[in-house]
Amino acid sequence: MNSSLSQILREIKPLDEKVMKQARARQDELTKPRGSLGQLENLSIKIAGIKGEITSGFEHKAIIVMAADHGVVSEGVSLYPQEVTRQMVFNFLNGGAGINVLARFVGARVVIVDMGVVGGFEPHPNLICKMIDFGTRDMAKGPAMTREQALDAIQAGIDVVEGEIARGLDIVGTGDMGIGNTTASSAICAVITGESVEKVTGRGTGLAGEQLIHKVEVIQKALELNRPNPKDPADVLAKVGGFEIGGLAGVMLGAAAHHIPVVIDGFISGAAALIAAGLAPGLRDYLIASHLSAESGHKILLEHLGLSPLLDLGMRLGEGTGAALGMVIVEAAVKTLAEMATFGEAGVSKENQI
Amino acid sequence: MNSSLSQILREIKPLDEKVMKQARARQDELTKPRGSLGQLENLSIKIAGIKGEITSGFEHKAIIVMAADHGVVSEGVSLYPQEVTRQMVFNFLNGGAGINVLARFVGARVVIVDMGVVGGFEPHPNLICKMIDFGTRDMAKGPAMTREQALDAIQAGIDVVEGEIARGLDIVGTGDMGIGNTTASSAICAVITGESVEKVTGRGTGLAGEQLIHKVEVIQKALELNRPNPKDPADVLAKVGGFEIGGLAGVMLGAAAHHIPVVIDGFISGAAALIAAGLAPGLRDYLIASHLSAESGHKILLEHLGLSPLLDLGMRLGEGTGAALGMVIVEAAVKTLAEMATFGEAGVSKENQI
Repeated sequence: MNSSLSQILREIKPLDEKVMKQARARQDELTKPRGSLGQLENLSIKIAGIKGEITSGFEHKAIIVMAADHGVVSEGVSLYPQEVTRQMVFNFLNGGAGINVLARFVGARVVIVDMGVVGGFEPHPNLICKMIDFGTRDMAKGPAMTREQALDAIQAGIDVVEGEIARGLDIVGTGDMGIGNTTASSAICAVITGESVEKVTGRGTGLAGEQLIHKVEVIQKALELNRPNPKDPADVLAKVGGFEIGGLAGVMLGAAAHHIPVVIDGFISGAAALIAAGLAPGLRDYLIASHLSAESGHKILLEHLGLSPLLDLGMRLGEGTGAALGMVIVEAAVKTLAEMATFGEAGVSKENQI
Repeated sequence: MNSSLSQILREIKPLDEKVMKQARARQDELTKPRGSLGQLENLSIKIAGIKGEITSGFEHKAIIVMAADHGVVSEGVSLYPQEVTRQMVFNFLNGGAGINVLARFVGARVVIVDMGVVGGFEPHPNLICKMIDFGTRDMAKGPAMTREQALDAIQAGIDVVEGEIARGLDIVGTGDMGIGNTTASSAICAVITGESVEKVTGRGTGLAGEQLIHKVEVIQKALELNRPNPKDPADVLAKVGGFEIGGLAGVMLGAAAHHIPVVIDGFISGAAALIAAGLAPGLRDYLIASHLSAESGHKILLEHLGLSPLLDLGMRLGEGTGAALGMVIVEAAVKTLAEMATFGEAGVSKENQI
């Protein structure tokens, strides 16, 4: 592989309607009242449309977790110091973070990518280095990155997901780590959805009161200063985005081009999806929203993408933790379509009209 | 074992507050912003309180599916003929039903119990026979069962769950099969919650319009005729309940007495929980509501029990299918508490006050 962004954008096709009709017909023959598996039925049909066939499950699952730092933390927008991004990457490598636990539990491998963490890393067999720079610049003082860096970040995501496809990949989840990245994501969300900054800015790791007001002001300042063009996703990413957000956008685009369903995590992955869907509107059909984050802008973001979250458990950790749980629901849906008996096979009577 | 109902009721104790405090303290030390795993954190603490210790997962999982028939189907309250109950039990035994697929997927065994299916069964190694009678009588013409049968059904549930505990059981889910059992469950729900029959009566397997109005009228007639006493759960079960509903109430009580968490499925399991919690109010703490059923009375029922559903996927199949998915979320929660690294272990900085 090694596809370019322009090749990838051409390869994102509509879902296979014929296979989806077959999947719908089979769901209606399974031993249950029609529609009684609710969203599981719709999910199983969507996956069939993405894959172009009715599959029996996902042998190869991965959560791609991309980490990077954000210059805007110097404005005081997070409760945690910047070095936590780097420390958490070590935690990922050592298997102790939330995403490690949940990915192990659901049988997914964790793919850790340095997209630009301050301080950098020695080479490590389980860390993919796609470092664009040691963190973005402060968006409240100028563009977070150059346009070239933005495009490089997206390309890095394409490269990473194509590398994982080469290792075997049936479904992919997205995750993030980056102190300050809810600030970048809120900025992206405000620009692309057109909603006010207040509405799409949340507590992040736990801001309250004055701290939250300050975060809103920082984002407003960054938008006024940089004036990102909402019609140009690469411009939005460059001016107020982050390296991991660009990378995740590339992962989504690359996966979709190869007919691999993408389970997106929470608010940061959602911001990446806004960028990616801006580049390829057809991408939306390949995305599954795993959960509704407690981060306040997430609902607005998902509505803009036309996605309904599977879970609403008040989570706001990131890392792909929501995606890992969502992946279980998707696989359960696929299993019902593949493995349940039909009325005919089981000798069960169908409904009467009473 | 072989505990009597009165022994079981005495053995249902409050959760272990001391262990819950330890679990809360550990959650706050794990490498994530406090509270960022949302309901997973609360679930992990609840499970610790039920078990009296912080556990690392559930080695032995079971979904107990109880089947029985309902005399009220002669009033025309279901789209499916009564023989579907029996046919679906064969489907369970052959591994082709929704619950078989989902239980296999989550690593739970399926325990199938005949609580009183019309036609009965030849002995089968995977079918537990606790048959009370060949279906209940028509509640629109008199009591569904005698008080003695109601108490026998509850005792049968206790016996079944104690048998499973003897085989190894760390968490249990409940499921049901019985054409006509949403009618019985709506009747129970109306009596115990005090809500109107209209509000707690739903489409079941797919009723619409006139059919739904007729179902409401049948339930109203049954309640007027039988006048179940809302303060006497056994009376409610006898007059408008079902054998599988009584059995599931017994499963819940028996599990709680032995400190085993119970993941309840949808509307039918919820009606059983109303009966069981009427007998032992402390039971509520041992219950986890897996999902919000599309059946309209379910929300009212869960609010009455003080439970919040984990999932809302528009499912209304029964059989324990929601419980199987809910069990995954519960186990994920337990794993995070047991396996995530603390800030100290991982060398990750804690939050600042900015």
